[in-house]
Amino acid sequence: MEDRTELSALGEFGLIERLTKDNKAVNDSTVLSVGDDCAVLDYKEKQILVSTDAMAEGVHFDMVYTPLKHLGYKAAVSNFSDIYAMNGRPKQITVSLSVSNRYSVEALEELYSGIRLACEKYGVDLVGGDTTSSAGGMFISITVLGEGNKGKIVTRNTAGENDLICVTGDLGGAYAGLLVLQREKAEWKANPAVQPALDDYDYVLERQLKPEAGKWLIDFFEKNGIVPTSMIDISDGLASEILHICHNSRKGCEIYMERLPIDYQTSRTLEEFKIAAETGALNGGEDYELLFTVAQKDYEKIKDCKDIHIIGYIKEENAGCKLITPQNTAIDIKAQGWNHYKKQ
Amino acid sequence: MEDRTELSALGEFGLIERLTKDNKAVNDSTVLSVGDDCAVLDYKEKQILVSTDAMAEGVHFDMVYTPLKHLGYKAAVSNFSDIYAMNGRPKQITVSLSVSNRYSVEALEELYSGIRLACEKYGVDLVGGDTTSSAGGMFISITVLGEGNKGKIVTRNTAGENDLICVTGDLGGAYAGLLVLQREKAEWKANPAVQPALDDYDYVLERQLKPEAGKWLIDFFEKNGIVPTSMIDISDGLASEILHICHNSRKGCEIYMERLPIDYQTSRTLEEFKIAAETGALNGGEDYELLFTVAQKDYEKIKDCKDIHIIGYIKEENAGCKLITPQNTAIDIKAQGWNHYKKQ
Repeated sequence: MEDRTELSALGEFGLIERLTKDNKAVNDSTVLSVGDDCAVLDYKEKQILVSTDAMAEGVHFDMVYTPLKHLGYKAAVSNFSDIYAMNGRPKQITVSLSVSNRYSVEALEELYSGIRLACEKYGVDLVGGDTTSSAGGMFISITVLGEGNKGKIVTRNTAGENDLICVTGDLGGAYAGLLVLQREKAEWKANPAVQPALDDYDYVLERQLKPEAGKWLIDFFEKNGIVPTSMIDISDGLASEILHICHNSRKGCEIYMERLPIDYQTSRTLEEFKIAAETGALNGGEDYELLFTVAQKDYEKIKDCKDIHIIGYIKEENAGCKLITPQNTAIDIKAQGWNHYKKQ
Repeated sequence: MEDRTELSALGEFGLIERLTKDNKAVNDSTVLSVGDDCAVLDYKEKQILVSTDAMAEGVHFDMVYTPLKHLGYKAAVSNFSDIYAMNGRPKQITVSLSVSNRYSVEALEELYSGIRLACEKYGVDLVGGDTTSSAGGMFISITVLGEGNKGKIVTRNTAGENDLICVTGDLGGAYAGLLVLQREKAEWKANPAVQPALDDYDYVLERQLKPEAGKWLIDFFEKNGIVPTSMIDISDGLASEILHICHNSRKGCEIYMERLPIDYQTSRTLEEFKIAAETGALNGGEDYELLFTVAQKDYEKIKDCKDIHIIGYIKEENAGCKLITPQNTAIDIKAQGWNHYKKQ
């Protein structure tokens, strides 16, 4: 009898780890391979960053409420985010697309117009790709290449004890937007004559449907002479990402619950769904904000930036990874991240 | 009423052309973008090549007769082939995978073992990727990065009049192998107790299931100081590829039918299916041989290589693209290439 492990038993990260565990680099130009937001390739003057992200219909997006242009925009931006998360700058992308013939050429042009819009906004070139038919559904995979300066590329395994833990923007909005869209879809299914009630949700819907990547932060770092000690983008939720940083850096952390940046509309929307705002901020994915750590000496340089929030500190490994409540209770941080294989 | 063009009306190449027609490069490092086997990126000392290829279940492969290890091997090798087709050397790949949960972890490990085997054989590093679930079917997209020397990267738009047209290895084998596998599948469906009759088809089956890429040719060029005037890999059939070279170079050509290199087993197998060997050689895809042109002055350097076949000459554009029969009749070459959107 053959061994059989269900995909759901490992989850996405476990699966990637398992599939790549014997992966060894043979080329001098391969400086960093699987295991971070990007691979780093060394071609002398600059270092090249490359990253691939895949999105599947019915898993990452639902055609009922995702305009194709937004889908293209988001697919591109979420890839750029991986390059920024290394303190690099995206330069080129390739797009791989599989679609059934229920899509028209115009529909795919819509999708590409979103990709192009993102490329224009972030100064990225679309340099290749492949489009093929599928037996069903749409699948988009984008590979992004970027460049970073030697010695200034930031990975997730180099956080130091007592470093400040920082996050950009605000959290949980994309998740709140998704909940609204799912609710409207359910109501529309029950009664197609009903108009979707999407007023008052503009911010969270935009966070879900048209996220932006953290280019401004890389500009800010450059201008102010800051190199973070570690960085990651928030695609699977803050809890999951801080655990990546701590686990890879062999450190612990303390995150202060009242420091979590949450927009008022996000908080109000989550409340409608009986979800605590902090839970949404910790576990909601797809915000594409950046989570990073800086040395204490850089505090003066970041303290006045209104879009950077200091939410905690890196601790020694034995301290564990803790969320500190306003009542000063320490709770273990657990990743509630998405497991695509379980959802079905 | 919205315009609606069916995907089948354009076909793969038309679709790519349409989707990327407004695509402009903004970065100095983007030397060559969409429209050849690879994009060329300039990072000073070397130029980087990047290419993406997608394969979908039910379109590019059939799980009934495709062992997963072979599938992984072929997916990787067909990507390497794109880099060799630019006179470059593949160095890194990223793998993007979408699979339904009817696949087990072991099945995906099998797939990855094939990818790794190809990487080891060709000296390539697997540097990243993404794996996600799908609503149904498997989809694999691989992006490959490679390097080439400045001034020696070979595109498909630079063939010169009177250049020799050359092809490596032999043609039509992968197509013959596919026909055998499809026949056995049909017989197995009709009577599952029957054992597949695959003896005597070892070569064509290997051509279909485990193709190789033209690394040896790039080594040969380097050793002998040859830079071809144009080059492309044969993934969609010789006829389709020579038309790409001629169209992009604004030239015509003459191809001599009796010069087409065809293996005996390929010829015998195609005969069983009542297909003329030359038809299979011209239109059968997936051989991953290299089609290139060299200046007449390089004739001496290539004439003794048994795996390089001179099959014709580049002509002026007005001469058209002709196949010359043994009876000296000139027939227009037409691309019978695959149109995935029509097959369904």
